[in-house]
Amino acid sequence: MVLTTHHVGIAVSDLDAAVETYARLLEAEVEHRDRLEEQGVDAVSLCAGTGRIELLAPLGAETPVGRFLAKRGPGLHHIAFQVPDVGVELERLRRAGTRLIDETPRRGLFGLEVAFVHPESTGGVLAEFVSDGRT
Amino acid sequence: MVLTTHHVGIAVSDLDAAVETYARLLEAEVEHRDRLEEQGVDAVSLCAGTGRIELLAPLGAETPVGRFLAKRGPGLHHIAFQVPDVGVELERLRRAGTRLIDETPRRGLFGLEVAFVHPESTGGVLAEFVSDGRT
Repeated sequence: MVLTTHHVGIAVSDLDAAVETYARLLEAEVEHRDRLEEQGVDAVSLCAGTGRIELLAPLGAETPVGRFLAKRGPGLHHIAFQVPDVGVELERLRRAGTRLIDETPRRGLFGLEVAFVHPESTGGVLAEFVSDGRT
Repeated sequence: MVLTTHHVGIAVSDLDAAVETYARLLEAEVEHRDRLEEQGVDAVSLCAGTGRIELLAPLGAETPVGRFLAKRGPGLHHIAFQVPDVGVELERLRRAGTRLIDETPRRGLFGLEVAFVHPESTGGVLAEFVSDGRT
């Protein structure tokens, strides 16, 4: 059960410049800053009202976000939907034949429980499910 | 003042297939279906919880969404932020030196008042501001 759009992920090359741009554009506030070595990203989440964006800068060229930037340039990277329980959604999607990137929930940025669906099952969109007990 | 993420726009080549895919993926319901001849799109909005996505299929190859699909394939197209008054936001952005696609609010899909910001001012993201009195 999707509750709302949790955030939209945006790939950027210069994190500090992007934070300044979006803070001004949306009159948004920085919520978190985090580094996830195993995914090769530095990330900042920004909140404006109840909306949230996540800015992602690669730690190197040979990371998923690094390859995305090389191929497509900066821009919209993924959309994350908030659900009460990521494991329940994965089981529902698996039964429906959806191709998953994460077969089980894992810890994502900011310590949240997340899982990604494969773009093959969404018509080209990288979709994430997030359980966020804070909201 | 951004209130929330109003919707995320997704470019698709087969609208009916995409509606079926996302309805199943998100357990979402169709909210609206509309054609905007002057923008060259057929569109369907889907709601899941308080989240919303907008699926956009081009009416021809020489339309903005048709060119997007030819260049990048199906995927995330734009992000729309809900604001109380689109005209007030445009004035704020103009004063801050933001490059705009729409200098004044116009009627977009589903009869809503909208305006687009140029991707040059957002680091490559097509951003929309929407005023939606229904929500």
